[in-house]
Amino acid sequence: MQIEKYKIAEHNDSLAPSLKRAYEFLAGEINDAESIIRKLTDFQVAIPSWALGTGGTRFGRFPGGGEPRNLEEKIEDIGLLHQLNQSSGAISLHIPWDIPSNPSHIKALAAQHGLRFDAMNSNTFQDQPGQALSYKFGSLQNVNKAIRQQAIDHNIEVIRHGIELGSESLTVWLSDGSCFPGQLNFRHAFQNTLEGLQEIYKHLPDNWKMFVEYKAAEPNFYSTTVGDWGQSLLYAQKLGPKAYTLVDLGHHLPNANIEQIVSLLLMEGKLGGFHFNDSKYGDDDLTVGCMKPYQLFLIFNELIEGMDARGMNHNTDLGWMIDASHNVKDPLEDLLQSVEAIMISYAQALLVDRNKLLAAQQENDVVTAQEVLQQAFRTDVRSLVAEARRRAGGAINPIALYRSEKVRDHLIKERGAKTMATGL
Amino acid sequence: MQIEKYKIAEHNDSLAPSLKRAYEFLAGEINDAESIIRKLTDFQVAIPSWALGTGGTRFGRFPGGGEPRNLEEKIEDIGLLHQLNQSSGAISLHIPWDIPSNPSHIKALAAQHGLRFDAMNSNTFQDQPGQALSYKFGSLQNVNKAIRQQAIDHNIEVIRHGIELGSESLTVWLSDGSCFPGQLNFRHAFQNTLEGLQEIYKHLPDNWKMFVEYKAAEPNFYSTTVGDWGQSLLYAQKLGPKAYTLVDLGHHLPNANIEQIVSLLLMEGKLGGFHFNDSKYGDDDLTVGCMKPYQLFLIFNELIEGMDARGMNHNTDLGWMIDASHNVKDPLEDLLQSVEAIMISYAQALLVDRNKLLAAQQENDVVTAQEVLQQAFRTDVRSLVAEARRRAGGAINPIALYRSEKVRDHLIKERGAKTMATGL
Amino acid sequence: MQIEKYKIAEHNDSLAPSLKRAYEFLAGEINDAESIIRKLTDFQVAIPSWALGTGGTRFGRFPGGGEPRNLEEKIEDIGLLHQLNQSSGAISLHIPWDIPSNPSHIKALAAQHGLRFDAMNSNTFQDQPGQALSYKFGSLQNVNKAIRQQAIDHNIEVIRHGIELGSESLTVWLSDGSCFPGQLNFRHAFQNTLEGLQEIYKHLPDNWKMFVEYKAAEPNFYSTTVGDWGQSLLYAQKLGPKAYTLVDLGHHLPNANIEQIVSLLLMEGKLGGFHFNDSKYGDDDLTVGCMKPYQLFLIFNELIEGMDARGMNHNTDLGWMIDASHNVKDPLEDLLQSVEAIMISYAQALLVDRNKLLAAQQENDVVTAQEVLQQAFRTDVRSLVAEARRRAGGAINPIALYRSEKVRDHLIKERGAKTMATGL
Amino acid sequence: MQIEKYKIAEHNDSLAPSLKRAYEFLAGEINDAESIIRKLTDFQVAIPSWALGTGGTRFGRFPGGGEPRNLEEKIEDIGLLHQLNQSSGAISLHIPWDIPSNPSHIKALAAQHGLRFDAMNSNTFQDQPGQALSYKFGSLQNVNKAIRQQAIDHNIEVIRHGIELGSESLTVWLSDGSCFPGQLNFRHAFQNTLEGLQEIYKHLPDNWKMFVEYKAAEPNFYSTTVGDWGQSLLYAQKLGPKAYTLVDLGHHLPNANIEQIVSLLLMEGKLGGFHFNDSKYGDDDLTVGCMKPYQLFLIFNELIEGMDARGMNHNTDLGWMIDASHNVKDPLEDLLQSVEAIMISYAQALLVDRNKLLAAQQENDVVTAQEVLQQAFRTDVRSLVAEARRRAGGAINPIALYRSEKVRDHLIKERGAKTMATGL
Repeated sequence: MQIEKYKIAEHNDSLAPSLKRAYEFLAGEINDAESIIRKLTDFQVAIPSWALGTGGTRFGRFPGGGEPRNLEEKIEDIGLLHQLNQSSGAISLHIPWDIPSNPSHIKALAAQHGLRFDAMNSNTFQDQPGQALSYKFGSLQNVNKAIRQQAIDHNIEVIRHGIELGSESLTVWLSDGSCFPGQLNFRHAFQNTLEGLQEIYKHLPDNWKMFVEYKAAEPNFYSTTVGDWGQSLLYAQKLGPKAYTLVDLGHHLPNANIEQIVSLLLMEGKLGGFHFNDSKYGDDDLTVGCMKPYQLFLIFNELIEGMDARGMNHNTDLGWMIDASHNVKDPLEDLLQSVEAIMISYAQALLVDRNKLLAAQQENDVVTAQEVLQQAFRTDVRSLVAEARRRAGGAINPIALYRSEKVRDHLIKERGAKTMATGL
Repeated sequence: MQIEKYKIAEHNDSLAPSLKRAYEFLAGEINDAESIIRKLTDFQVAIPSWALGTGGTRFGRFPGGGEPRNLEEKIEDIGLLHQLNQSSGAISLHIPWDIPSNPSHIKALAAQHGLRFDAMNSNTFQDQPGQALSYKFGSLQNVNKAIRQQAIDHNIEVIRHGIELGSESLTVWLSDGSCFPGQLNFRHAFQNTLEGLQEIYKHLPDNWKMFVEYKAAEPNFYSTTVGDWGQSLLYAQKLGPKAYTLVDLGHHLPNANIEQIVSLLLMEGKLGGFHFNDSKYGDDDLTVGCMKPYQLFLIFNELIEGMDARGMNHNTDLGWMIDASHNVKDPLEDLLQSVEAIMISYAQALLVDRNKLLAAQQENDVVTAQEVLQQAFRTDVRSLVAEARRRAGGAINPIALYRSEKVRDHLIKERGAKTMATGL
Repeated sequence: MQIEKYKIAEHNDSLAPSLKRAYEFLAGEINDAESIIRKLTDFQVAIPSWALGTGGTRFGRFPGGGEPRNLEEKIEDIGLLHQLNQSSGAISLHIPWDIPSNPSHIKALAAQHGLRFDAMNSNTFQDQPGQALSYKFGSLQNVNKAIRQQAIDHNIEVIRHGIELGSESLTVWLSDGSCFPGQLNFRHAFQNTLEGLQEIYKHLPDNWKMFVEYKAAEPNFYSTTVGDWGQSLLYAQKLGPKAYTLVDLGHHLPNANIEQIVSLLLMEGKLGGFHFNDSKYGDDDLTVGCMKPYQLFLIFNELIEGMDARGMNHNTDLGWMIDASHNVKDPLEDLLQSVEAIMISYAQALLVDRNKLLAAQQENDVVTAQEVLQQAFRTDVRSLVAEARRRAGGAINPIALYRSEKVRDHLIKERGAKTMATGL
Repeated sequence: MQIEKYKIAEHNDSLAPSLKRAYEFLAGEINDAESIIRKLTDFQVAIPSWALGTGGTRFGRFPGGGEPRNLEEKIEDIGLLHQLNQSSGAISLHIPWDIPSNPSHIKALAAQHGLRFDAMNSNTFQDQPGQALSYKFGSLQNVNKAIRQQAIDHNIEVIRHGIELGSESLTVWLSDGSCFPGQLNFRHAFQNTLEGLQEIYKHLPDNWKMFVEYKAAEPNFYSTTVGDWGQSLLYAQKLGPKAYTLVDLGHHLPNANIEQIVSLLLMEGKLGGFHFNDSKYGDDDLTVGCMKPYQLFLIFNELIEGMDARGMNHNTDLGWMIDASHNVKDPLEDLLQSVEAIMISYAQALLVDRNKLLAAQQENDVVTAQEVLQQAFRTDVRSLVAEARRRAGGAINPIALYRSEKVRDHLIKERGAKTMATGL
């Protein structure tokens, strides 16, 4: 479903006075609100196709209703999100869950919703019905050459689908690893994986990037073959200039300093993409910003600092994606909250007085350095984000409009209460 | 299937000389090998019915073959394990997965295999087909009284099934908790849960125990309503003398000192039962002893010290259970490895020279205290465990016999390659 | 040194217009700003006497200058902080570092600065020059009765000093524990400690409280005898109604849900006091709010919810203290930042719409529950805190005035560049 | 002091029969005991000069007595250890604590004790008396060029001292980092550090190695400029062929898979050295093998596998050092326990049936792979280690002889009860 334009207009009219008051106050407090608004408007976060349904854990899954039953309905859902927030103008597909039977139709449909195709995701962590060989003991790392080849072929197929849709990047997340000491020879596993990635790399078009995602643990509980940023960087170094590291916020050991990792990867020219989510214990895949919003801000602070130092375009030179799992919330509401949290952090990071920060660092004035960051973080930038959204044609309060329009009820009516989106 | 007795005898005959050599050497090195053998013989670990199939993670499941298709076949599998190691003489059922249609038949079947029924496990962490109300937002903690009542009624039903089978304890593991700040009022959740447990407690027969299991996280990723031993103990204190805490090795925050928890719970007379497994990152549910065997030994060291201080019976006064998930191993082989690791740790802990340890502690002789523990741990007690098993009628090397008898192949032939055991 | 009143007035005059603008905007956005200002004004956080000097780690200490050389100068420093922020009206002493030679003089001096004496802190984690027996192997847990008695006597002496000064509580932090498996019998250590605490408890005046502080690790690296909230609560239960648990934010295992602990301790009527600081890895003792400000807010959210549910007075019914270590910042500036972070979190927590939150919880509307909390947290309440401070006679921007008045330079001139405050 | 040879002989005579019994049993159970004994005999672990005194924490230090008062006495202590265990034939010095006033005398003294000089350690994490500039805000990372130069010059001086003594490697551990977000620009800190290391690298003799040690946290609690193996490897890659990564077991985030790191660094030809210790919470610096002996075994398993794959010499091609802190034990006894634990792990790892392991890995036979490792780990190899020691002229039971000879009493008599060794 889509929300008719006049509904958005009515919604915005009703909230305009209070937004105006807040925005004007804020614009008077900060420098160059207009320039920040422009950057916010440009910034687009890709929604993964598998995030539109209710996730679960190994202990159970409690589905909601009205979940998209096919790729067309997924695009429709993301289109709706984008209509509401004007910041979700991209979709990240997962193969085989989202193989387009008619790519040009799908491409046109996405374009209609103002969506482009961000990174394609391959899947060698599950066995699909009818699959010849099993990934039980890994895919690219496998001791069995035929299984490795199957995984390579699958990734090449994913690239092919991506080319048809206009995507320009491939995210390779391997769950490869081991559950028990002795199960793997770590070096052989690394080398098999590297060879597989090299084969896949050869099939990347010139304008494509390959994102090598790392993860500390799960589903393997002893070792992971792309387990941390150091390993991912090693692969990316050996693969070549089109290979990059992808950072997922939930894929680290406890207490890791992710913002430092981000800074160093940017320094090396090897940060490729980002998976946003939040977590307390492990790869909890919670709504972005729900647990550690200051960490998210600090990461954005490094992203901007590091991208600006290399003259990178904030919106297009990194792949921005959400990767969360919505177990107890309506997935669409969850995504609206996630995008909002991202925009808030981005706006706050843009507010950081970089000259003052650098000066404080040069003088080891740690107190002032902290004040500079906290000054930005403690600023209530919600009116800035809402104003950017309003100007771009979105809703001032997307969740409020989503609810007042009873979108979920409509989706359930249309699609049924027992549908289940493919995915995690 | 069962292994014919003469097969075990043949197997043992072939290994007897080398076992004799090792056992005799060891018996000459330690005090009173015979007394340890008697204790090992008495010690029985319950196998949970859900551990007989291949587990999985939220990312996928890679089933093996020949998994038990019903309760009868589960009993048969555990009977086979017990035949091989003579230390798995109990079964822990899970309701609703294992509702016995004919309890007296099931009881007789178990008795035939030398098995008794250990703790019954209720399940309010999943929605069953046809269930009236959903546990999506918790069971005993739920804000909805009808859902709480449904969970209470289910537990009472589990007790009823347990009575029929001769079980004498109920394990309550609640996945109740929250994924997001604000989702729950912690106090209300605690109080609702307490009231529910009190209702269930009223239905416990006099000779029964209730085990209140705790877990730090998963499937909820912000809070858990029975989240640590302190919370479990609070419930157990408020419930009364039949309520105890159950410790699962994988349910703690990183770096927790589990052996100290064990010691303090024993001091309070509130340790009720144990779930054995091993882990590196979270509740990884790996084979017992595969990751941190010294920690397992230290826990047994405290168990023995604390139980002996209270005059408790090692075998019968605590509920000993395995709770693991076998993702990449044959579940039966995994269980054989787990029981072996438990017996080894138990034997090593029995070897600790308690007088010498206490004397060293009294003199703050930390070096000697460590030497005493390491002396026990570094001793190769496998011949002791094997000799106890041999004398009890089990196999000297259970896994070797399991493999040479091609048990898994037989099970697949009998049950099919695509069966899937109920459970996690 | 003190800052002359007219300096504060001049400072405030210069900042008044912008504060007025911000405050008026905010007061228009929220309910009942005046009532929140009253609560902020009442709220006082105790400064520990040892936080006025530069801390260090086992690897080194890099002292600053102008640190207080005696108790009088410590009181002067806290008086200065209180002058600036009007929220630091209490001091928490540490014996033996702060034994007052003339208690009535010290009491009068504190009163002159508007300070009262909060919890007294005993020290049995170090050996003092001339001390008869060593705490190398613990104090109250010690296997040696004479050492236990020495520690008991010391605590009784601390109470005596506290009575003279008008304090009404004793904080007992024991570093007791062990570094190696086998070093301690956990049960004996617990029981010795309990007996010691019972002796000390007997000497508490009727209007006093005893705070039993817990800590997961450091300086002992295997076990701690008051290691977590569960253990602390066990002691407090056994000691009686004047015994409470004290929570220090940095004393938990990784990922612990501290706000849930706070809620449950309040439910049990056993939360006594709080040590504020922040950390990333362990007991890092960093500036409050510098690392996880949202966690701090969530804790305040539970504190208010729980205290209100019991009809407790926010300011007087719990002991609020800072416990940080200032390694790379001017200690006084660090404390100003810490108090500011506390006031901000408190103000945000007061903003939470409790009716709306409860209603959302009752409907399992997780999305709205999160929105309610984030609505409060994302609000920029700094003008509220500053306005409360201004009205109470403090400085609108304490750090700015501290710096423009060159306070540290004056202190160095007065006390020397090489002074070293007693303490950690 | 030294122990007279006939004392060792007497000690060995008394223990010979039981050792003979145990060794003969074991030699009958395993393959080629003699070859393992030869490898054990060759294997030497360096003792750091700072490990000979009682360590402490930021909360206190409880010194023992008889600690070495100068470099000569440190060499004497290590000589004594080496006499006892014949496996401590190297010393690792720390500058400025151990600046030799007369290098040729020191060299001769060491040779007399059979000791060589292993890696030299520089110190830019503390300020020394009389030092011109402070390392409060870091050394090689410092924003101040003069401070960076001071740190560079110090390292060059350390190399000079090392050359005089015959050392061939430099360990650079930098505590550089930050305590607060904003304090540092991560990229600038990295680049300053790299430039400094490059300067130092230029002064390395051709036959020297530089070990770049990493550490997750402490004494800085937000970021560390050489924080993990990925960062260390980046530096080592950029520095050149003489630069390597040094792994200290206690310098990782919780749950890190250190053995995989070891394997990958060996694969890259960039593992240079090792600091042995053990820990539960952080950099606890406990006795090797006291907490996680299986992890230590798994690390040795990878070391041997990876070194053999590159044809490296077990003893000479990596720098083996202990880095522990002895807070509650006699430092010399602690070191004897540490070396024993290392030798045991090394022996167990040598026992691993590599062909069987590789075959199991090739067949994804996870159960057998685990059995192969556990078979080695569960073997009691103490008689093998003791026999190797006996043959080399050491004591069968070093700690027993150390105690019966009352070495500590002699040292106290000789050096005093209040001496304090330089170091941590």
